[in-house]
Amino acid sequence: MPSALILIANGTEEMEFTIPYDTLVRAGIDCTSAFVPSESEVGLAYAGGWGINDVTVTCSRGVRIVADTTLEALLAEPTPKVYDIVIVPGGAKGAETLSQSVQVQRLITDQYSAGKLVGMICAGSLAAKTSKLPSQPLTSHPSVKKDLESSFEYKEDSVVVSGSLITSRGPGTAFPFAFKIVELLCGEAKVKEVRSPMIFPAGVF
Amino acid sequence: MPSALILIANGTEEMEFTIPYDTLVRAGIDCTSAFVPSESEVGLAYAGGWGINDVTVTCSRGVRIVADTTLEALLAEPTPKVYDIVIVPGGAKGAETLSQSVQVQRLITDQYSAGKLVGMICAGSLAAKTSKLPSQPLTSHPSVKKDLESSFEYKEDSVVVSGSLITSRGPGTAFPFAFKIVELLCGEAKVKEVRSPMIFPAGVF
Repeated sequence: MPSALILIANGTEEMEFTIPYDTLVRAGIDCTSAFVPSESEVGLAYAGGWGINDVTVTCSRGVRIVADTTLEALLAEPTPKVYDIVIVPGGAKGAETLSQSVQVQRLITDQYSAGKLVGMICAGSLAAKTSKLPSQPLTSHPSVKKDLESSFEYKEDSVVVSGSLITSRGPGTAFPFAFKIVELLCGEAKVKEVRSPMIFPAGVF
Repeated sequence: MPSALILIANGTEEMEFTIPYDTLVRAGIDCTSAFVPSESEVGLAYAGGWGINDVTVTCSRGVRIVADTTLEALLAEPTPKVYDIVIVPGGAKGAETLSQSVQVQRLITDQYSAGKLVGMICAGSLAAKTSKLPSQPLTSHPSVKKDLESSFEYKEDSVVVSGSLITSRGPGTAFPFAFKIVELLCGEAKVKEVRSPMIFPAGVF
């Protein structure tokens, strides 16, 4: 069973987290969400061990989501699991936390160097820059285009696949982003199988 | 500021909850999510008062969402607030809990009788039947069509507006469902304003 690690922070865009998570689970991909604290939150969650309150994130529009674990806990395991894909959702504040985290940067660099997939959507694409991925085709939410266009071959397609880096634009492209990941991990037949019961209007996605 | 009450239960489809909640908040609608326990859960959450653990729902594909409050708490207020729309998401198990809840049935009956909007998506449309709404045009996820077609004028459009009842089909129609609600509560100009930064592919929704 393929596996996915989906990062989440306070301020993550809840649709850009939930649509990939849910769609990948429908495809039979084992999904794990991992909370990443902002610099000012580091240490707070660990003062007394961590529980449900510590991994509860308030997303960009107020939906509160409980992460499955923390990135720190995953990395502290004797042999940290290598996932088939690591996904960075957007949401301005959440993407800032994720892209500025040294742990996230190291995770992405390791994942990318190992030839494993990395997915970034919306402002989450900022993590490609902070992780110093090589210049290549990439997209993002238009609001962070200026931060990325000098370091990458900036595109405006809904989903851009460049080797093992998959990037996308916003909540409106979250479904095609998720379907592309399913296609890469499980094949095109699985995309059709997953998409059908979701009942998209004719001709959409 | 218009207001929306979005119901949630264990087994609710997380995309059908999150997409309307997030999109309505983007439109400036004040959203409140309220947990509804299943029959076997009733009483458990209240044994010692309720806290974050009691209102944490495990959705249909494993995303855990913390509701803003409980329906019981809202109804226990001296003068329960009347929302501009009450929304029932799908997800087989969640929709069963919501549609079978006597409190939900009463809420929907009162909301509908007062001429206020009621939104139902996917298997959430079962609540139209259990709340004994009058026969009228309606849609749902195809999996529950057989339960609804003898009581309603069953349609297969992505979104069906029948007076104050708005119904829709599945995760793939959750965006147009949310946009229709924004249009009805805030006008068409607001839909355009909200949709633009979501970056849908050209021609989609």
